[in-house]
Amino acid sequence: MTGQGPEAVAERHHEGAPVVPQHLSTSAFGTDHPIGVAVLGMGNVGTEVVKILREHAEEMRQRVGAPLVLRGVAVRRTGVDRGIPAELLTTDAEALVGREDVDLVVEVMGGIDPARALIGAALRAGKSVVTANKALLADYTGELAAAAERSRADLYFEAAVAGAIPVVRPLIQSLSGDRVDRVVGIVNGTTNFILSAMAETGADYHATLAEATRLGYAEADPTADVEGYDAAAKAAILASLAFHTRVTAADVYREGIARISAEDLETAAAVGCTVKLLAICERIPGELSVAEGGKDRVSVRVYPALIPLKHPLSSVDGAFNAVVVEAENAGRLMFYGQGAGGAPTASAVMGDLVMAARNKFYGGRAPGESVYAELPIAPFGDTPTRYHVNLQVADRTGVLQAVAGEFADHGVSISTVRQEGHGAGARLVVVTHHAQESALADTVAALAELESVTSVTSVLRLEGTEE
Amino acid sequence: MTGQGPEAVAERHHEGAPVVPQHLSTSAFGTDHPIGVAVLGMGNVGTEVVKILREHAEEMRQRVGAPLVLRGVAVRRTGVDRGIPAELLTTDAEALVGREDVDLVVEVMGGIDPARALIGAALRAGKSVVTANKALLADYTGELAAAAERSRADLYFEAAVAGAIPVVRPLIQSLSGDRVDRVVGIVNGTTNFILSAMAETGADYHATLAEATRLGYAEADPTADVEGYDAAAKAAILASLAFHTRVTAADVYREGIARISAEDLETAAAVGCTVKLLAICERIPGELSVAEGGKDRVSVRVYPALIPLKHPLSSVDGAFNAVVVEAENAGRLMFYGQGAGGAPTASAVMGDLVMAARNKFYGGRAPGESVYAELPIAPFGDTPTRYHVNLQVADRTGVLQAVAGEFADHGVSISTVRQEGHGAGARLVVVTHHAQESALADTVAALAELESVTSVTSVLRLEGTEE
Repeated sequence: MTGQGPEAVAERHHEGAPVVPQHLSTSAFGTDHPIGVAVLGMGNVGTEVVKILREHAEEMRQRVGAPLVLRGVAVRRTGVDRGIPAELLTTDAEALVGREDVDLVVEVMGGIDPARALIGAALRAGKSVVTANKALLADYTGELAAAAERSRADLYFEAAVAGAIPVVRPLIQSLSGDRVDRVVGIVNGTTNFILSAMAETGADYHATLAEATRLGYAEADPTADVEGYDAAAKAAILASLAFHTRVTAADVYREGIARISAEDLETAAAVGCTVKLLAICERIPGELSVAEGGKDRVSVRVYPALIPLKHPLSSVDGAFNAVVVEAENAGRLMFYGQGAGGAPTASAVMGDLVMAARNKFYGGRAPGESVYAELPIAPFGDTPTRYHVNLQVADRTGVLQAVAGEFADHGVSISTVRQEGHGAGARLVVVTHHAQESALADTVAALAELESVTSVTSVLRLEGTEE
Repeated sequence: MTGQGPEAVAERHHEGAPVVPQHLSTSAFGTDHPIGVAVLGMGNVGTEVVKILREHAEEMRQRVGAPLVLRGVAVRRTGVDRGIPAELLTTDAEALVGREDVDLVVEVMGGIDPARALIGAALRAGKSVVTANKALLADYTGELAAAAERSRADLYFEAAVAGAIPVVRPLIQSLSGDRVDRVVGIVNGTTNFILSAMAETGADYHATLAEATRLGYAEADPTADVEGYDAAAKAAILASLAFHTRVTAADVYREGIARISAEDLETAAAVGCTVKLLAICERIPGELSVAEGGKDRVSVRVYPALIPLKHPLSSVDGAFNAVVVEAENAGRLMFYGQGAGGAPTASAVMGDLVMAARNKFYGGRAPGESVYAELPIAPFGDTPTRYHVNLQVADRTGVLQAVAGEFADHGVSISTVRQEGHGAGARLVVVTHHAQESALADTVAALAELESVTSVTSVLRLEGTEE
């Protein structure tokens, strides 16, 4: 249809036939004209995407309106039998992306380089991109979204957060008429598997990590997962969408799970809680930030925390993921499902791919990056949190008074104190109300210096309470 | 921008400015040109939508790219103070929809007439429509979608199913590259409130319904809710989306909750289950339907059923809704949140409205109706279900044999049998494996005729088991 004037377009439109707006088509898309797809990477996810494209071609054609045709797959090494025709495989990803007959690019290779350059090249050429690359998006969404904007291409990334679970699209589209106050998620399957197993077996962190590695739930180098980098990248993406503000991985406060002990999980169970690695994206209302002129601020953080067993995230076990979104009008929503794995992630990729292909075919675009709100990032110390502190103390009169005094001196209000044991085993368990993170941290540091406090045996944050 | 040639459009496009494709704009949309909105109905939902449009105008402008301006609200009676300028109110919905400066129509009046005609008129005029009207959609989506298709307008209806919970958009978009096998939802808040309360208090159905009415959870005429009509309409919508097949309310097998007794809930608790009114949309694989030439069939049904306490839907209590979607690649997903109420439903309406407005402004369209699969609807009798049957029986030798014989004669395999009580209180509790609904129903009818069976005290279906 390229080259037809507006009249011809208008005519077809009155017949109810698919119309491709002039400016969107660089090649001519008709009902039988295929839409070419390049897949970059053939790991777990890429393999599943290729399989679906080949085995469900007719279904995809029906859903798009035109055939989706796999033009090629970029891999590190050819010559390995991957169950698809050898001529589809190439090590030259750049040439594949640049092919005239490639309209859509699926990036599932991961890592920053060369994914960043390849996606950039595709977008600059007006080719829509579907990516599952959270690390890349957490740092370079701005650059990639700008490239997409310039060429009117789409950048889709549902698969980058929480695998098969639709959470990116609901935040961008379904909640586009609401005000999101908080997003709290379990978005890393490895750490959730480890914490669930520790809670169940009573084993310590290192033994459980070893078991998770043996079972394939943790990678040989588990750093990105257990230190919270993976969750932090996803938190940055979620916060950007939720608050219409550009948030990068560097804006996310991050603690991993390596310091969580078997005793922490016992403590949790004793107080009707469990420990989860949470990605928390929170709007701090302007009235709490006079220094910022009353503008709302954004807090984004990843750390292991106690959550009450009655909280919906507490029962999300093993490799499952879940994301809770709290919005002004919608109230509390929860999205639950498989957050990783080849097939679930491929489901999210394919959903994006069908939408990107429909946009190519019918015209139209996915919503681009929305960062108009430009909310400032609150320093972690300003974040309101609650602490659950276990202290080993001297068994004598006045200890409680001294400990309570430290909390009061730092302006931290105590919710409950429990005294346990006697003699050398005497302990105090203190749960605070919400207070500024910095005040809580300072209080704990001061407690450690108290003569009557033998040791601070555990400090855990408490999330998901109504108080 | 109307009237500019393709060259002018192409030029703006290279500058990265918003482009309105020729064929999509009947009026000229520029960044300062407002998009006019008409709201039909000012009940709970309409009131919240109007409030958001007025109080969050700047946020909506940022998210759309142009101002969303409320042109008017159609109400049954003017002269009542509704907290908005009187000149915005009109009783002439038809004239409001027809106004030149109305680009988008929000229908939250409910009911078939006049909503059907008004939405039809809007769509025929190329005005996109956002509706929360499940009863209308369950019967007339085909007609309305065709009108939208002809004029290239959008028909959005996220709010029609499960209120604030994004489930329509995930089914249409996120899962568009996957194959959905099953959707099971708690999609009616009134019945879920009643069943949750019965389980908690032990009270009977009529007392609990009276209490629900008093608290505002049930309407004065609760028929649509308690008889399952509301859930059936939502099931038809969900099934249509899940299976790319037009399903109407008449295709849905429906039983309400009025026959659920306090004893049924006791029985449920005794076997580690609870009773929920479920909307079930299921793909019956072709290999089970040789008569249909091996084509997959669709079963859509609404009834109260036992579900195990470990099933994620069992803990969805009170007025909350949840929908579980099982797809080939995504696996099991769950969506949870507030399924009704003014503000939650308005959140869903506003999300659709922002997307419809963006499409008007930037060009592009929401995916239209997808019914290419045209899967046949399986008769309810062909549906595989499981039964949980309580029988009052004579306390004598041979009863179990006689009962087991009836199941065997109908080709129904028994999972467990439990004998309880003695003398006049002797009971048998039988749980079957999956069997054809018609065989199960015939078995129960035959049991009632057995001399040794005093009465069939309860028959409940069992859902959500792996078997």
